Amino acid sequence: ENILEGKPVVYRQIVVPQPGPKEYCTDSGLVVPSISYELHKRLLSAAERYGLTLERRLEMTGVCASQMTLTLLGGPNRFTPKNLHQRPTVALLCGPHVQGAQGISCGRHLANHEVEVILFLPNFVKLLDSVTSELTLFIKTGGKQVSSIKDLPDTPVDLIINCLDCHENTFLMDQPWYRAAAEWANQNRAPVLSLDPPVSGQGHAVEAKWSLSLCLPLPLAEGAGRVYLCDIGIPRQVFQEVGIKYHSPFGCKFVIPLHSA
Amino acid sequence: ENILEGKPVVYRQIVVPQPGPKEYCTDSGLVVPSISYELHKRLLSAAERYGLTLERRLEMTGVCASQMTLTLLGGPNRFTPKNLHQRPTVALLCGPHVQGAQGISCGRHLANHEVEVILFLPNFVKLLDSVTSELTLFIKTGGKQVSSIKDLPDTPVDLIINCLDCHENTFLMDQPWYRAAAEWANQNRAPVLSLDPPVSGQGHAVEAKWSLSLCLPLPLAEGAGRVYLCDIGIPRQVFQEVGIKYHSPFGCKFVIPLHSA
Repeated sequence: ENILEGKPVVYRQIVVPQPGPKEYCTDSGLVVPSISYELHKRLLSAAERYGLTLERRLEMTGVCASQMTLTLLGGPNRFTPKNLHQRPTVALLCGPHVQGAQGISCGRHLANHEVEVILFLPNFVKLLDSVTSELTLFIKTGGKQVSSIKDLPDTPVDLIINCLDCHENTFLMDQPWYRAAAEWANQNRAPVLSLDPPVSGQGHAVEAKWSLSLCLPLPLAEGAGRVYLCDIGIPRQVFQEVGIKYHSPFGCKFVIPLHSA
Repeated sequence: ENILEGKPVVYRQIVVPQPGPKEYCTDSGLVVPSISYELHKRLLSAAERYGLTLERRLEMTGVCASQMTLTLLGGPNRFTPKNLHQRPTVALLCGPHVQGAQGISCGRHLANHEVEVILFLPNFVKLLDSVTSELTLFIKTGGKQVSSIKDLPDTPVDLIINCLDCHENTFLMDQPWYRAAAEWANQNRAPVLSLDPPVSGQGHAVEAKWSLSLCLPLPLAEGAGRVYLCDIGIPRQVFQEVGIKYHSPFGCKFVIPLHSA
């Protein structure tokens, strides 16, 4: 045993007011507690009051989620000039809500990096402003947009990104477009990345291989697959304002894997 | 020699209307031409018209520049829980302009990742809105802000990030705060990263070891050091609108090194 030791490492650097039913830890053993959706929402609202607007969050989430996706698709080995004729295909399934807008932002960054993106977004007469503005930018990539499941590929894609769910409206799940999209995803056999999935009481309509949670994890069900966490740029004192003692668990990364503690 | 070959690789995938005096290439040999500041400005304006606002650009530039900085500071080896008592120190020198705002955004993300950030920003009665909003967020990290060179460290820091220059106003260089900050940087002996440096006719007041250019490089002088390029999320068709034929040179990355061709 080594007698010369540095200061003891504190592994519990994040303390939340009402610890959720689940705890995670990082590769280096830092504890990351889950929080309730209500607290998560208050944290995002507090950040917005200081200017970390939804628009900024959409951009940052899009960048970090696309970085994770590019790694999942094969990273530097797959994305070389010599491979340009083998562009990977990603099906992006989005509902008409903020989670959908996050997905479209991710889709733009993927399409910018020569990924073949097919965006499914159901037809609605009026969309949220945040969805419309992401869509305007996405269309400029030349990425494909469809509103009917029939126009999604019959053959397996390389990856499905699931942004069908939102945190507040579970009625969505009963809508025909939602059911059709979920069924398509389950039949396609491509691995699924869920972006910002909700805590689901009823289980997940689409089982994910990976899930990416934002800033602090919700207590996710098993169907969420392997959980990753995304830094969305909230300063420490904003965490404090909603009662969370926070030190970044991210090290030099912006997306890290979490493990059930 | 290998007879079985794939399609020939096209290395000149970016074609600009008036090629600048300099050409760069990526690690994999793709040619990246430089463009004039005027064309760069038109490109950003076109992107803004489609909703890629200054605010979004600030967030994305901040994230990507901080990712590059975290790598320069030592990456995963430096940022482990066991190293928390050895936090690296970064001096961030910002002028009162958009380039300064980009720097402050980068500073927030660095401070969020447990880097000790000391922001120098000269005192002005009225600041640009974009600078004020970045500042509001930065202050919440607990990062330090000073307006006098006297309050910057006497001893070498780990890295200096230079955001003193803007592209349009070279008169800045004659102001006392600018000269004092440049002199401090040159005396500190820490390596310098220049963020979005201008094409400088008069040479650089602060010599950089690295420079990070945004979206397409300007023809930078020798004093800019090793040039890196940052993806800021502009879709291909926006490039087309200002006459640039564009395919991403970034592969799966958001920041890549460039070499003089």
